[in-house]
Amino acid sequence: MSVLNMAKEAYEASISLASLSAETKNKVLEGIIAEIHEHTEDIITANEMDLERAAAENLAAPLLKRLKFDKGKIEDAINGIKSLITLPDPCGRVLETTELSEGLILKKVTCPIGVIGVIFESRPDALIQIASLCIKSGNAVLLKGGSEALLTNRILTKIITNAIKNNNLPDSCVSLLESRDDVNEMLSCDEYIDLIIPRGSNEFVRYIMENSRIPVMGHADGICHVYVDKAADLDMAVKVTLDSKTQYVAVCNAAETLLVHSDIAEEFLPKMYAAFKSKGVTVKGCERTCKIIDALPADESDFKTEYLDLIISVKIVDSIDDAIGHINHYGSGHTDAIITKDLKAGERFLNLVDSADVFLNCSTRFADGFRFGFGAEVGISTNKLHARGPVGLEGLMIYKYKLYGSGQIVEDFVSGKKKFTHKKL
Amino acid sequence: MSVLNMAKEAYEASISLASLSAETKNKVLEGIIAEIHEHTEDIITANEMDLERAAAENLAAPLLKRLKFDKGKIEDAINGIKSLITLPDPCGRVLETTELSEGLILKKVTCPIGVIGVIFESRPDALIQIASLCIKSGNAVLLKGGSEALLTNRILTKIITNAIKNNNLPDSCVSLLESRDDVNEMLSCDEYIDLIIPRGSNEFVRYIMENSRIPVMGHADGICHVYVDKAADLDMAVKVTLDSKTQYVAVCNAAETLLVHSDIAEEFLPKMYAAFKSKGVTVKGCERTCKIIDALPADESDFKTEYLDLIISVKIVDSIDDAIGHINHYGSGHTDAIITKDLKAGERFLNLVDSADVFLNCSTRFADGFRFGFGAEVGISTNKLHARGPVGLEGLMIYKYKLYGSGQIVEDFVSGKKKFTHKKL
Repeated sequence: MSVLNMAKEAYEASISLASLSAETKNKVLEGIIAEIHEHTEDIITANEMDLERAAAENLAAPLLKRLKFDKGKIEDAINGIKSLITLPDPCGRVLETTELSEGLILKKVTCPIGVIGVIFESRPDALIQIASLCIKSGNAVLLKGGSEALLTNRILTKIITNAIKNNNLPDSCVSLLESRDDVNEMLSCDEYIDLIIPRGSNEFVRYIMENSRIPVMGHADGICHVYVDKAADLDMAVKVTLDSKTQYVAVCNAAETLLVHSDIAEEFLPKMYAAFKSKGVTVKGCERTCKIIDALPADESDFKTEYLDLIISVKIVDSIDDAIGHINHYGSGHTDAIITKDLKAGERFLNLVDSADVFLNCSTRFADGFRFGFGAEVGISTNKLHARGPVGLEGLMIYKYKLYGSGQIVEDFVSGKKKFTHKKL
Repeated sequence: MSVLNMAKEAYEASISLASLSAETKNKVLEGIIAEIHEHTEDIITANEMDLERAAAENLAAPLLKRLKFDKGKIEDAINGIKSLITLPDPCGRVLETTELSEGLILKKVTCPIGVIGVIFESRPDALIQIASLCIKSGNAVLLKGGSEALLTNRILTKIITNAIKNNNLPDSCVSLLESRDDVNEMLSCDEYIDLIIPRGSNEFVRYIMENSRIPVMGHADGICHVYVDKAADLDMAVKVTLDSKTQYVAVCNAAETLLVHSDIAEEFLPKMYAAFKSKGVTVKGCERTCKIIDALPADESDFKTEYLDLIISVKIVDSIDDAIGHINHYGSGHTDAIITKDLKAGERFLNLVDSADVFLNCSTRFADGFRFGFGAEVGISTNKLHARGPVGLEGLMIYKYKLYGSGQIVEDFVSGKKKFTHKKL
């Protein structure tokens, strides 16, 4: 089937999905759990074949690790679905009720967005997680996983569509795309697809954003900053900066640049440098930094670079506003933190830094849907519309206005025969 | 100044705008009122020059009427600003507070989107309304009005920027674009502009949507439907359909297609036809319709046409699901109404019609920000993301996550030393 037809069928399925009861959606999720239990061995076999092929193709060890979908990870995936079942139905929530006039009641009600296209990395558990989130939220979904995981993804998709069909729903609710060409085809299906969520490398996300008229939710770069203010607790600053940089370097919420107020630079930087060295971090500094510690010289391009590695750029600034200006210029609107005991300065930073996540006295690594308590995460968005920061179920929802009348016409209000009351109920 | 530079300066201004107090923003709005009072004569003179030029260029009478900005309309505009002043500040509202762990508090807080580009029709009052909405919501704005209103728009912009400067804010908060070339330049400023709101003809909105990578909020078509169910009160159906079609034909929420259940078509259509004739409406019907009433034959293209005129297309359907299918296929996701006494059928329609506004037993013409009680309207959106239906101040807002800590690091949670509490506060 062409991707256009898959998208069209997904759109048609999305209409009935939108009005499913919470019970039915949870039954499908329970069905997926049952199917996974029944086919655990088949999943593992398929995954082993993927792993073998990937190893033969010399896939790097960290990627092989992500690709692996063993009993433990399958159990984690099942637990994820179970916790999703316990969440309240995000659809049909009445956000506002207004009496426009006697007997004319307006309700703003949550509903699914419609059809979502998700492109994700090699982890097969991402497929289960995303498909489950879409079912719970009543959205149809086109999935494209990493090609390394093809056989695993195929069997997982079959398991999910079986559970869907067993509940008398159209299996076009969840479809699997298999090739890069499929992705390109999907990008042009703006008639049927409402949102694309790409996860992966900067370049890839940027490619998607630049090649589709479908709205894209996600982030390309994650150039996150820690700013150590003149009023910082310096020990805390060392600890939080080190965690932000080194706790897990290959992720978007790891810090890439450290900004230091000039008043405390001479005292702070040697301490910080020692801590960085203890973790094997290469330090690249501005001219003033290099006069205080033994850093490699950083040029402007360093402050635009997401290293995703044990490297950090350091710059000395003369004021909090210089720090804010630097972040708004070089940052990617993802996550930025200030370390200060001066709460007024802290609030200024949180207000003026134009990022999805702005943190006071804690690690940038907290920017994450699970840590934020969302239960499940679709991704992290640096968009300025719809959903920003870590995105959970809520980011897959929109609303519609239902207006309940009893024969009201606008002419009666224009002529003055009737009046609006606009009473919040 | 180039549009790119205007956009860049608007972005810089937006950072400080975002953290203004409600008092300061209201002071600017009060300043605008004072400036309008002071310069009423100059505004009227500029507008008269625009009107003279437009008349010499043979602008159509309805457009001349919209262009006119006399004492009465100026008073209306002032009243609009006054009511905006009374609204609560949409910025800095705490939407959610969660304790992630002891002493680690997450707040989801509303904030402005940033920089908005608005392209609007010839009414000069639109300029005042949009600029005031942007100031109240803390967004910087680039405005492009109709070229017929150039002199009026210039003086209004000057008045607004005066009020801004008098409050020690950068006048780049509000800028005026003057040519079509400016608009094209604006479309490529995706580095600085976060959202474009185009108001105008279908073609124009579509052009904007297809030629920018900046998110666009708005609607191209407004192909709205009234479906008269088999369980409809037929007198109500005649009254509501007539209002939906004829109360004001040149607007997006006017009905363009009438769907009629076959069970009641023979009784209903002659009544409806007489009512249409009384208002001078041309009726174009499907084959079955033409057998019952003296309608012109409609072909498929009619059901895709937004007439914006005293013309309606009529189709007989055999079930509510056929009606829903027709609307989801031919509609534009704007506003659709069902007339029925069967509340279960009504709810089915409201749930399954994939439109921003779904109405039971009332006119499609109610789809409007003022009628919905929003106080002010930015436009009507048929997007499936961010804001849908009539969009008020809320559609100009997004949120950021502020996380308040006291030195917390992620490593302590990964190692098990600390635990997340995820307590809603």
